[in-house]
Amino acid sequence: MPAISNLVKEIAPSATLSLKDEVSSLEKQYGFKIIDLTTGQPDTGPTDDILQALWEGGKLHKYGPVKGDPELRGILSEVISGQTGASYDAEDIAITVGVKGGLDILMKVLLGPGEKAGIIAPFWVTYPESVRLAHGIPCFLESDQALRPDPARLRKQVADNNIKVLLYSSPSNPSGVVYTEDELGQIAKIVKEKDIWVISDEIYAGFVFHGRKHSSILSIEGMRDNAILVDGPSKRFGVPGWRLGYVAGPRQIIAAVTKLQGHVNSGPSRPEQYAMRVAYTSQKAKQATEEMRQRYERNADIFVFGLIEPISCVKPEGAFYAFACINQLFGCEYQFADNQYVIKTSIDFRNFLLRKAQVAAVEGSAFGMDGYIRFSLATKREEVSKALANIKDAVSQLWL
Amino acid sequence: MPAISNLVKEIAPSATLSLKDEVSSLEKQYGFKIIDLTTGQPDTGPTDDILQALWEGGKLHKYGPVKGDPELRGILSEVISGQTGASYDAEDIAITVGVKGGLDILMKVLLGPGEKAGIIAPFWVTYPESVRLAHGIPCFLESDQALRPDPARLRKQVADNNIKVLLYSSPSNPSGVVYTEDELGQIAKIVKEKDIWVISDEIYAGFVFHGRKHSSILSIEGMRDNAILVDGPSKRFGVPGWRLGYVAGPRQIIAAVTKLQGHVNSGPSRPEQYAMRVAYTSQKAKQATEEMRQRYERNADIFVFGLIEPISCVKPEGAFYAFACINQLFGCEYQFADNQYVIKTSIDFRNFLLRKAQVAAVEGSAFGMDGYIRFSLATKREEVSKALANIKDAVSQLWL
Repeated sequence: MPAISNLVKEIAPSATLSLKDEVSSLEKQYGFKIIDLTTGQPDTGPTDDILQALWEGGKLHKYGPVKGDPELRGILSEVISGQTGASYDAEDIAITVGVKGGLDILMKVLLGPGEKAGIIAPFWVTYPESVRLAHGIPCFLESDQALRPDPARLRKQVADNNIKVLLYSSPSNPSGVVYTEDELGQIAKIVKEKDIWVISDEIYAGFVFHGRKHSSILSIEGMRDNAILVDGPSKRFGVPGWRLGYVAGPRQIIAAVTKLQGHVNSGPSRPEQYAMRVAYTSQKAKQATEEMRQRYERNADIFVFGLIEPISCVKPEGAFYAFACINQLFGCEYQFADNQYVIKTSIDFRNFLLRKAQVAAVEGSAFGMDGYIRFSLATKREEVSKALANIKDAVSQLWL
Repeated sequence: MPAISNLVKEIAPSATLSLKDEVSSLEKQYGFKIIDLTTGQPDTGPTDDILQALWEGGKLHKYGPVKGDPELRGILSEVISGQTGASYDAEDIAITVGVKGGLDILMKVLLGPGEKAGIIAPFWVTYPESVRLAHGIPCFLESDQALRPDPARLRKQVADNNIKVLLYSSPSNPSGVVYTEDELGQIAKIVKEKDIWVISDEIYAGFVFHGRKHSSILSIEGMRDNAILVDGPSKRFGVPGWRLGYVAGPRQIIAAVTKLQGHVNSGPSRPEQYAMRVAYTSQKAKQATEEMRQRYERNADIFVFGLIEPISCVKPEGAFYAFACINQLFGCEYQFADNQYVIKTSIDFRNFLLRKAQVAAVEGSAFGMDGYIRFSLATKREEVSKALANIKDAVSQLWL
């Protein structure tokens, strides 16, 4: 067999895959019923009117514009304006195959081989890999103790590493931190000083808690030529399996994204783009999002309040995750099925939770912080309570 | 504004885009009604049962397996066996976002930066760009006078250029040539001698004419470790806008494609994958494909028979294009709207047809052969006859 590329070896597989294997092996071997708090998606699906529109959209069977359905782009222009306060014309928006599909192409547009992207940690698992797929180099930029952006450190790291693209999500996956206007203003200042690109991932903008306001770097003066938005319907309308996203930014960038997309995949499904016209304008869908938001807010409150020392967690301000600090438990031991285990890493802790609490969560190392673990709370409240009780019980069985 | 990557400049935009601009400008300025023979897609859409399944599939709203729907992969295993005579397990198949989405990832798996892919000309426009997107180098390999593969020349060109991946389509877009078993055997010999990869694009396998048999390099002994299939439902079921394709090959390659796809886009739409379970097993859909095949065969016969000297065309054996040799007309002149034009390239000839015959076709240079022009015949018979008459009339007005 001929050789394959080095790139394949450099790319990390999705963190949740090995986890899935571990879960099914435990379920099979010990009859466990594991509570799944790993999944980065809502527990509910699209409303009926969206499903109906999908069927109607099936009639769009021929090739469509590579940039995406013009009517949907017109609607998104309004959506973006409402969400970010910045004005983007339909021409300044390209529809992509999920946020992943947008980032993959954007990185190729913005980064040459060997150029560097700065990723604010903790980060979504795909960011570094999308940089590597463009033969760029991911640099990991530290947040402060409360997992908030640290402008002074950021400025230095951006300069020291010769960062060309800065990348973050707010509301943050995995931390649930929602950047304030002040924080965004300070990031914008660094971006402008160094004249670099900044990519704002706002996929969780529909899920902001406790009366907070979602703010976007796009609306800050002077950001027009530097900031790019990635977003999509997956989370707010419960359609991650439909694979839709979009990119908005300077017209030159959107033209470049479209040019590459013409060869990468010709853009996403037309029937689904048609259905999204309905999703983004439907009152029913809007209400469903708001109901989810309220449930996930409540879940986050319950979960974080219920976590006990020495596990700690910054209170989620948005998204639907709790990113808990577990490094106080490193060094602890436990017994399972006649074996003794020591917890030394977040993967060890993940396995401990699987074995002793029957709770599946994702290790922090996948998000760039090994002292942490991510719980997804986009699930029923009973599951959250049950998981909490199981975790407490399991932790009480640890010894040093 | 910060700089963008050189890659964006290196990638050629889709050839049909500038064409679309020219068409709409002529339609606007002169009130022309242009006969569109540019489009690489069937003129009919999916059958009702497929549309119904799309609606049902809407319920698959959560993330699915990155490799694709297991049930669909099981069905495709049977489809591939019937089409190629080679046996691929569901595990050896990955569902992709169209054939483009498959090629884009495959090139990244097979080629390192600076490594070379050999593309047999004439070729589908996206092949060289998918190689460039992987930072590979496309090399163009010549066919013989009849646009058939030329094994002796191929062997030499593969060796001289240190080709790592060989790439072709059969039935061929744009030439309509269907490789014989003997030709495939000779290509396989070269592949094995040099131990290189070969990608067989069989997207037009549903459209083979005059009782010919579609043959595949995959079934040739010894090809198991070297050959990779790319294919999809777009052409045979009339769903190019749905953006589905698949890749089949050595398990290690499919695992690598899946690993990258996990970050590139997570794979295509789940509702559409669900609908494809129906498409690939529906008798109704099968019959619709056969009806299209018969119509396109008849269109090709009529069109090629009707073309007059000095335009010549090898008789299409499959797909739905006629790739006509027009270089005998280079040097000819014509008048249009008070301007005098000389035809020096296939783009000039394309513009001549637009202006004087009101027929849109794609210049051969886009497919690697400037002396040619591609007509798509996936349309109504009346359109084909009308186009033919218009072309005859326009050519008679040329002078040297």
